[in-house]
Amino acid sequence: MTPEATLARFREYMVGPTRFMTLLSCFELGIIDALRERPGMTAAELGDAVGVKPDAVEQLLFLLVKEGFVGYGGAAEEGRGYSLDALGAVPERDLKRALAYMNMIKVVALRQLFNLTESARTGTLVGLKELYGAEGTLYDAVAEHRDLREAWAKLMDTVTANIDPWFFGNIDMPSGAQVLDLAGNTGLGAVHTFQMKHVPGMRVTTFDLPEKETECLENFRAHGVAEHCSFIGGNVFDGIPEGFDVVLIKHFLDMFDRDAVIQILNGVHKSLPVGGQVNILVPVYPEDVTETDNHNVDFFPAFFIGCTMGQGGPQKLSTYRSWLEECGFEVTRTVTKDPAELPQDVIPVPAVLSATKTA
Amino acid sequence: MTPEATLARFREYMVGPTRFMTLLSCFELGIIDALRERPGMTAAELGDAVGVKPDAVEQLLFLLVKEGFVGYGGAAEEGRGYSLDALGAVPERDLKRALAYMNMIKVVALRQLFNLTESARTGTLVGLKELYGAEGTLYDAVAEHRDLREAWAKLMDTVTANIDPWFFGNIDMPSGAQVLDLAGNTGLGAVHTFQMKHVPGMRVTTFDLPEKETECLENFRAHGVAEHCSFIGGNVFDGIPEGFDVVLIKHFLDMFDRDAVIQILNGVHKSLPVGGQVNILVPVYPEDVTETDNHNVDFFPAFFIGCTMGQGGPQKLSTYRSWLEECGFEVTRTVTKDPAELPQDVIPVPAVLSATKTA
Repeated sequence: MTPEATLARFREYMVGPTRFMTLLSCFELGIIDALRERPGMTAAELGDAVGVKPDAVEQLLFLLVKEGFVGYGGAAEEGRGYSLDALGAVPERDLKRALAYMNMIKVVALRQLFNLTESARTGTLVGLKELYGAEGTLYDAVAEHRDLREAWAKLMDTVTANIDPWFFGNIDMPSGAQVLDLAGNTGLGAVHTFQMKHVPGMRVTTFDLPEKETECLENFRAHGVAEHCSFIGGNVFDGIPEGFDVVLIKHFLDMFDRDAVIQILNGVHKSLPVGGQVNILVPVYPEDVTETDNHNVDFFPAFFIGCTMGQGGPQKLSTYRSWLEECGFEVTRTVTKDPAELPQDVIPVPAVLSATKTA
Repeated sequence: MTPEATLARFREYMVGPTRFMTLLSCFELGIIDALRERPGMTAAELGDAVGVKPDAVEQLLFLLVKEGFVGYGGAAEEGRGYSLDALGAVPERDLKRALAYMNMIKVVALRQLFNLTESARTGTLVGLKELYGAEGTLYDAVAEHRDLREAWAKLMDTVTANIDPWFFGNIDMPSGAQVLDLAGNTGLGAVHTFQMKHVPGMRVTTFDLPEKETECLENFRAHGVAEHCSFIGGNVFDGIPEGFDVVLIKHFLDMFDRDAVIQILNGVHKSLPVGGQVNILVPVYPEDVTETDNHNVDFFPAFFIGCTMGQGGPQKLSTYRSWLEECGFEVTRTVTKDPAELPQDVIPVPAVLSATKTA
């Protein structure tokens, strides 16, 4: 890589924040919806329609024209108006998914990233504290702050709905399984377990902080699984309940640094009988991080350290495998999602690791 | 462009903010300097050296390894440490320039962009107000807020030092010229005019807000040009001083929407005698905005509307030309900088427009 190529790549990074918000802002302002409804509008007409000065409409649309997302011009008799170009061909469902993610990044990350360096130094969320006065993690703050909660919950519901079918399609569930969904939040994972992986005699228990219990039990009732599911309140780091033979750990290990992950895996090991299984869903970095179709390293380190936890971040599959072995598990199966099978806007490339307690 | 390609491009946008801060943070934390000094350090050694948990060092460096900026591994006898790869080949001077720009974007833009949509709707700097309680533009706020001022001034000094020689190399300065540097700030432009374009009998006057006078006159003395330069206090929109035959407008027209630019150009026209010249330095969008080697549209719309002015943004050269003609000027010369001649990290692609008052 020449110095010139390196500096050109720096410039790509420099325009990252402005590109991100220019695109999102065109959606937020209603410009894209207006063009979908009435193609061919000029900047003046769009400005009228969305309540923005035409000068600003024109400025913000330059980038979308550059990208080919929006077209400008056309035949003389149509005037010099804008129309959806590439954006017009993207199914609305896909756009909604991408916009939910973009909104989450805007609300949960954009401003908070300003303090990434101090967050890395202190292991605390300096940006979250400065913006919201919040002392803990993002997961504590979402309980208090509606804007964070809405941006976060909308995204996580989308992610869970898209990825849980794949996860459950890749794990075995023995008949009569007594399942513990570790850090199972308000029960959606337990509901999915029951809906997607039901075997005779199965029982699923959500384990999370006691304050989640009420909402979790409501969710069980709402989904008609209350007689098969239950809730145990507690903290993963204080000890994991015994009496289960399958533990699920979804969207959780990537939140922690190595020492905490080892502590969690040791706790799971202690709680399980010999032969008990753990099934892990986690985004993974590719073994060769220079692979360009995996964007996990472009996003998660700064996101976890600067915006959600003050620590953590995914690892390579081989790292998780060695940590499981270090904690007394034999890894029986690993599956990494082929990035080409994910919708192209989706960042996390997940993997499933299944392992058995050997002794 | 297929829907898949469009969504993949969205993902590039989504990772823009985290990529930007991950790279900058590795410099801010001192990781890059530490590796320059002692190649081959492990994450644990780097963590010790810069006061950051090794887990976080490793996480943040994944992206730099992906990019080839930093290398990881090497021969077994060297251990599994990091070393500068592409970054090691970039001259320090170039890195310093790029980092000054990145720091400016972080301080002046990153958090403020959160409110881009509201800024576009209101024509005000909603983010600047929320963060600093500032009511005006960035240029008002830099006077009050040291962090903004330092990030901004450092960048502008770099930009001016790099681009002024090119600007003065592309304008004619008639003997005995009486030059007015419009919105000339604290006199650096006047000093450069004298140093780079001195002709017999020339006199240069900086015109800007009255509060700039003291610092401006000090600058003239410090540079030994006090007997050739002077200062007039005033506001461009309230009337432009007469008695000059060359007006310079540098880094200024791009700050305003069309109506304000026309007002400025009309004011200049009124102030000049027939035959008087105006020389404009301004970043321009390419006539075909889909050109990929010009990054002005990737940066400036959001930057001006969301972070510095609540309005404005550059235009195409042809737009500035038509505005000049509309205001009674004949455009005598235009030169656009070839993007390939700029250092590859530099965003603004500038142009010079020279024009004469015809009647």
